[in-house]
Amino acid sequence: MKSVEEQMKIIAKGAKEIVGEEELRNKLARAVTEERGLIIKLGLDPSAPDIHLGHSVVLRKIRQMQELGHRAVIVIGDFTGKIGDPTGKSKGRVALSDEQVKENAKTYTDQIFEIVDKEKTEVVFNSSWLKKLDFEEVIRLAASVTVARILERDDFSERYKNNVPIGLHEFFYPLMQAYDSVALKADIEIGGTDQTFNILMGRSLQKWMGLEPQAAVFMPILEGLDGVEKMSKSLGNYIGIHEPASIMFKKVMEVQDSLIIRYYELVTDEHPDKVIEIKKELEKGKNPRDVKYELARIITSLYHKEEVEEAEKYYREAFINKGIPEDIPELIIDLEKDNLAGIIPRLTEEKYISSGSDFRRLLAQGGISLNGEVLTQGDLDQVLICGDVLKIGKKKFARIIK
Amino acid sequence: MKSVEEQMKIIAKGAKEIVGEEELRNKLARAVTEERGLIIKLGLDPSAPDIHLGHSVVLRKIRQMQELGHRAVIVIGDFTGKIGDPTGKSKGRVALSDEQVKENAKTYTDQIFEIVDKEKTEVVFNSSWLKKLDFEEVIRLAASVTVARILERDDFSERYKNNVPIGLHEFFYPLMQAYDSVALKADIEIGGTDQTFNILMGRSLQKWMGLEPQAAVFMPILEGLDGVEKMSKSLGNYIGIHEPASIMFKKVMEVQDSLIIRYYELVTDEHPDKVIEIKKELEKGKNPRDVKYELARIITSLYHKEEVEEAEKYYREAFINKGIPEDIPELIIDLEKDNLAGIIPRLTEEKYISSGSDFRRLLAQGGISLNGEVLTQGDLDQVLICGDVLKIGKKKFARIIK
Repeated sequence: MKSVEEQMKIIAKGAKEIVGEEELRNKLARAVTEERGLIIKLGLDPSAPDIHLGHSVVLRKIRQMQELGHRAVIVIGDFTGKIGDPTGKSKGRVALSDEQVKENAKTYTDQIFEIVDKEKTEVVFNSSWLKKLDFEEVIRLAASVTVARILERDDFSERYKNNVPIGLHEFFYPLMQAYDSVALKADIEIGGTDQTFNILMGRSLQKWMGLEPQAAVFMPILEGLDGVEKMSKSLGNYIGIHEPASIMFKKVMEVQDSLIIRYYELVTDEHPDKVIEIKKELEKGKNPRDVKYELARIITSLYHKEEVEEAEKYYREAFINKGIPEDIPELIIDLEKDNLAGIIPRLTEEKYISSGSDFRRLLAQGGISLNGEVLTQGDLDQVLICGDVLKIGKKKFARIIK
Repeated sequence: MKSVEEQMKIIAKGAKEIVGEEELRNKLARAVTEERGLIIKLGLDPSAPDIHLGHSVVLRKIRQMQELGHRAVIVIGDFTGKIGDPTGKSKGRVALSDEQVKENAKTYTDQIFEIVDKEKTEVVFNSSWLKKLDFEEVIRLAASVTVARILERDDFSERYKNNVPIGLHEFFYPLMQAYDSVALKADIEIGGTDQTFNILMGRSLQKWMGLEPQAAVFMPILEGLDGVEKMSKSLGNYIGIHEPASIMFKKVMEVQDSLIIRYYELVTDEHPDKVIEIKKELEKGKNPRDVKYELARIITSLYHKEEVEEAEKYYREAFINKGIPEDIPELIIDLEKDNLAGIIPRLTEEKYISSGSDFRRLLAQGGISLNGEVLTQGDLDQVLICGDVLKIGKKKFARIIK
């Protein structure tokens, strides 16, 4: 096992904050001495989204820690899912059957295992211990925390202030997650900064119950391709881990220059020393485009090892060799009108064309192309994705941003 | 079974408030038709105090309802007692064993059965249903109420405002009591006005769980012999139900005139029509002393049926025949200095005596008497109780008020 210092360096890469750093060092020292990996906890909702690079930040960190010799436990928070909405107010939130929960979990974990090491991961359902707690044990759990402390959580304090009702049962959701850490004797819990309250509650509950508290590793929220908003599917500024190699490669090439180092830190497994190296090179004036080629190769190879070369070749042919200039103005389009026909008003507005009929004329003449491919009348319902390059007429280019 | 109107009249006698009066009428109407008594719930702590007339207010009302054909269920709140103090902060509050709880409950219920009808009463322990609830059921229970609603309870809102920590488990105590009403399918819950929050929560939880809500009968807090403070052992202004008949008789005779009707209403089983009658007589100028003789007979006979006559005879001999005037000034004494030696400074202050040596001289000469009995040097540690009449010298009298 690597030294404590080396491990700390890898764990800290890109992390927003580590709470309990001293304890983490002690745990790592013990792990090194005893040649026994630590338990890393990751809590997940039983919902099953398509995973994109934003989700990968936490998962890659787990992978890196697994490479260091530690074990991951993924906790599927099925207990709340099984209860459904006990107030009966939210129609959408009905109790899920055991089978539905397991099925959802499988769709999700199948994707997760494309990043974390399945051999060093256990998937558990928190209902298996939570459903066994009786009232007396729940009371002891509740006694670990004050009402004021829970009301401090951002969403609760906001709702309380604005007289938006909070059901008493809702106070138990952070406690349940905290109890998961007790049940698992977690050494480290990892999560996004939006999980700060719950993860720290796990720490304090472990202490309260006489256990060694877990260290908390908080990873930042990844910005999407636009460089501003959180990466998310609904904003269209994402790179999905299931997207074809060529799309993935192209999208990484669209990443804002200012985010290059951040992406190196958060969505690759590159060694921190190497990241520092690259940072220095950029500062010395290295062309960001060349660094991005390297980044695109690294990221694409994490998900499509065999296809990286081809993806790069395709990119060069489609974009560079087709005379698409490097410096293209951005065209921000409406998410609800994101196909070719839908953006005609925007193109008129921005003087790319003089009118809709101007556009149709150009289209009929083969004067409109997307990423180097000439479009026809049949492509009017073609959905544009973030980073697409549209060529209108002989000289005008627009890079689509959603 | 008596008519609904007649029953309502008896139930309402002396009650501070009835919540769900319309529902209560419906329940009673059904009880009359079906010849089946209602279930009256009374919740009690597992502590075992000496019962006095203050406690009897609620118990007598239950007895009156039992006479009307209803059944009482006394819920011993042993569940919280069994948990002890889950924060471990209060050393006094350790978890009680099943046997201790049963023993405490027996001491208490033995006294209760001197008032309520044992044949029509069931004693139950709320741990028998509460300990069986699992986390999921607890969550459903918690979902029945909002955080804001519980924080409205006087003691919680006070503590929250003043930043005095409230453990989350404490929020469950009112919910547990409320759940008792669900488990018992209580028709009526009775309690002091200090139980308003908890009893109304029982009502709303029953509704939430699809049951017919219980009616709530709130009895006022009884003033003690001083006519001001709540009757309580520690204030010394009480009449214990185990006190000898002669003391009980004498103490009732000391009750402030303004409280005669209140005592009739709250600590006797006299019919409401009769109480109205007495009230009219007093207003027409009947001597309160004569009414109090009747009241003393009634109250004493509730606890010492065979000894009432003798108690009255003793009272007349000890007080009236020994020349104790009716109109005696009150001497309020300090609870911490409540024996004969301890009140010497107060007697000097109020000019009953000129000094301590004056007092000792009078005592040695047989010039000090208590309730008509001459005191001696050996009586200096005699504790004085509320209502005692002290005679100092030939003409000075003081009625002790603690």
